[in-house]
Amino acid sequence: MEFIAAYTNYVEQELKKIDIPDSPKGLYDPVRYFLKIGGKRMRPILTLLGAELFGVEKEKAIHTALAVEVLHNFTLIHDDIMDNAPLRRGNETVHEKWNTSTAILSGDVLMIKAYQLLENQEGDLRQLLKSFNRITAEICEGQQMDMDFEVRPDITVDEYIEMIRLKTSVLLGGALEMSAIIADTSEKNKEHIYQFGVNIGIAFQIQDDILDLYADPEKFGKQVGGDVAANKKAILSLLAKYDATPSQLSILKELEKEKNLSDKITKTKVLFDEINVKQKSLELVNHYFELAQQEMDKIDVPSKNKERLTELSIYLLNREL
Amino acid sequence: MEFIAAYTNYVEQELKKIDIPDSPKGLYDPVRYFLKIGGKRMRPILTLLGAELFGVEKEKAIHTALAVEVLHNFTLIHDDIMDNAPLRRGNETVHEKWNTSTAILSGDVLMIKAYQLLENQEGDLRQLLKSFNRITAEICEGQQMDMDFEVRPDITVDEYIEMIRLKTSVLLGGALEMSAIIADTSEKNKEHIYQFGVNIGIAFQIQDDILDLYADPEKFGKQVGGDVAANKKAILSLLAKYDATPSQLSILKELEKEKNLSDKITKTKVLFDEINVKQKSLELVNHYFELAQQEMDKIDVPSKNKERLTELSIYLLNREL
Repeated sequence: MEFIAAYTNYVEQELKKIDIPDSPKGLYDPVRYFLKIGGKRMRPILTLLGAELFGVEKEKAIHTALAVEVLHNFTLIHDDIMDNAPLRRGNETVHEKWNTSTAILSGDVLMIKAYQLLENQEGDLRQLLKSFNRITAEICEGQQMDMDFEVRPDITVDEYIEMIRLKTSVLLGGALEMSAIIADTSEKNKEHIYQFGVNIGIAFQIQDDILDLYADPEKFGKQVGGDVAANKKAILSLLAKYDATPSQLSILKELEKEKNLSDKITKTKVLFDEINVKQKSLELVNHYFELAQQEMDKIDVPSKNKERLTELSIYLLNREL
Repeated sequence: MEFIAAYTNYVEQELKKIDIPDSPKGLYDPVRYFLKIGGKRMRPILTLLGAELFGVEKEKAIHTALAVEVLHNFTLIHDDIMDNAPLRRGNETVHEKWNTSTAILSGDVLMIKAYQLLENQEGDLRQLLKSFNRITAEICEGQQMDMDFEVRPDITVDEYIEMIRLKTSVLLGGALEMSAIIADTSEKNKEHIYQFGVNIGIAFQIQDDILDLYADPEKFGKQVGGDVAANKKAILSLLAKYDATPSQLSILKELEKEKNLSDKITKTKVLFDEINVKQKSLELVNHYFELAQQEMDKIDVPSKNKERLTELSIYLLNREL
C-alpha cells in the first residue's frame, strides 16, 4: 500500500500550507497545535482518491480534501470537551492544555477555516456547500445521539448503527461525494460513491468497537477493554444484551458494577465469548463491507479506476484483530 | 420610523420559516428556543436596507439577512458559555437552561444553519461565502481579544476599539457588504457600505458603554453601572485611566476593590465626571458616526436610496442617554 504513504505525505504538506494567523495567539495556537498532532488523514485521502476514480487529478480536489480534514478536527476539539477527554492521539486535548473557552472558540474558528478552504475549490460551489453543510449538521446530530445514549438504558443495535452513521460515517461518504461533485459526474455516481463511503465508515466503526476488546494488547496502543471498563454502549455489549439468556443478562448487569476493572474485563469477555458476540459483530462488519462493495460495483467508471479506493477500503478493514 | 417595525416583522416571519428539524430534540430544542427569545434583528434589517439602497428588492436578500441573524445568535450562545452569563435578553442562556455540552453543540449546528441559509441565496455565492467566512473568523478573533483583555491590566483605547470592531462591528459591516454583493454593485460601493456599517457599529458599541453608566435607570432595563461594578474594561474606564491625574488614578484603583457596589458606582461616577469621561466618550461616538456618514456619502447611488439606512443609523444612535 505504498500509495497511501504518498497521499498521506501530500495531505500533510498541504495542511502545513494552510494560512493560520499568528494573532490572537490564544485563538490560533491551539488550532496549530491540534492540526499538528496528526491522525491518519484518511478523510482527505478519500477525497483525493475519489477525484482520481472519476478521472480528476488529485491536485484539483485538494481544497475540499483539506476542508474535510479541518472539519473533522473541529468536531474532535468540541467532542473532546463534551466527552471530558484528557487525551487525543496520545496528546493533551485542547480544553485540557488550555481551557474550555479556548477549546470552544478555537473549534469554532477551525470550522470556519474549513469553509474558507472551500472558497478556493473549483467546481459547482453551491452543490459543494450543500453537501458540506448537510454532512456537518448530521455529524452534530450523531454527536447529540451519542450523548443521549449515555443516559438511556434501552439502545437498540439499529439505533446505535444510525448514531455511528451520522457521527462518523457520513463524513467518509461526504468526502467522496464532494469529489464526485468536483468531477461533475452523474447523480447516480455521486450517490453510489457516497453510499460506498458511508458503508465503509459503518464497517470501520464496528470493527473499532471489536478491536477495543479483542485487539492484540501489544499492537493496540491503548488499554484493551476500555469500553467494557467504562460500561460504554458499543456494538459488543449491545449485541450481547440482545442475545443473552436471562441468566447471562443478569450476570452482565452485575459485571457492570464490578469495581476491579481487570476482573470486569476478563469476566465480561468470557461471557461475550459464550454469547458469540465477536463472531456476530464480525458478520456485521462484513455485511457493511459487502454493501460498500455493491455500491462500488455500480459506479460507472472503468474498473481500473476503482482499484486504489478498493485497496484502501480493504486496508482500512484489515487492521489486526 | 414606522418602516423599522415593518422590516422587523418581516424578519421575524421569515425566521419562523427556517426549517429546524424535530429530532434529536436535545440538539434542536435549544436552537428553536434561542431564535425565539428575540433581539432587535438589526443585522438582517441592515442587509435588507442595503439591498434596497442598491436597487434590489428586500425579498431577494432575505436568505443572507437570515444567515447573518442566525450567525449572530450562534456567537451569542457560545459567548454566553465563555462569559458564564446566566441571562440573555432576560431569559436563561442555553448553557444555564440545559448544560454546556448542549450549548456547544446547539451553537455549532446554528452556525451550520447560517451557512445552509446561504445555499439558497441568488448571486455570486463564492464572493458571499468569502465575505461571510472572513467576518465570522473576525468575530472569533474579537471574542478572543475580549477574553485576553480580562487578564491584561494595560489595554489602550485603540486596542479596545479594535476589539469591538472585530467582535461586534464587522458583522454590521458584513451584513451590508453582502447586500452589495447580492446587488452586484461596484467594488468601491461594496467597500464604502462595509465601512459605513463598521463605523456605525463602533459608534453604537461605545454608546452602549456610555449607557451602561449614564442611562436613565427607569428606561434602561438592567442595573445601571454594571460595568463599573464588575471592573469591566469598557470605554469609560479606559478613557478615565488615560486622562486621570496620578491622584485620581490611585482613587480609581482603590474604588475597584470597593465591596459596597452602590458606593462604588456612585463614587466612580463622580470621579468620571471630574475627568469629563462621558463627554470624551460622546465625542468618540460622534467621530465614528461622522466617519460612517462620510462613507455613506461616497456610495454612488441616488441620494434618495440612502434615506432609510441613514434614518436607521440615526435611530440606533439616538437611544436615551
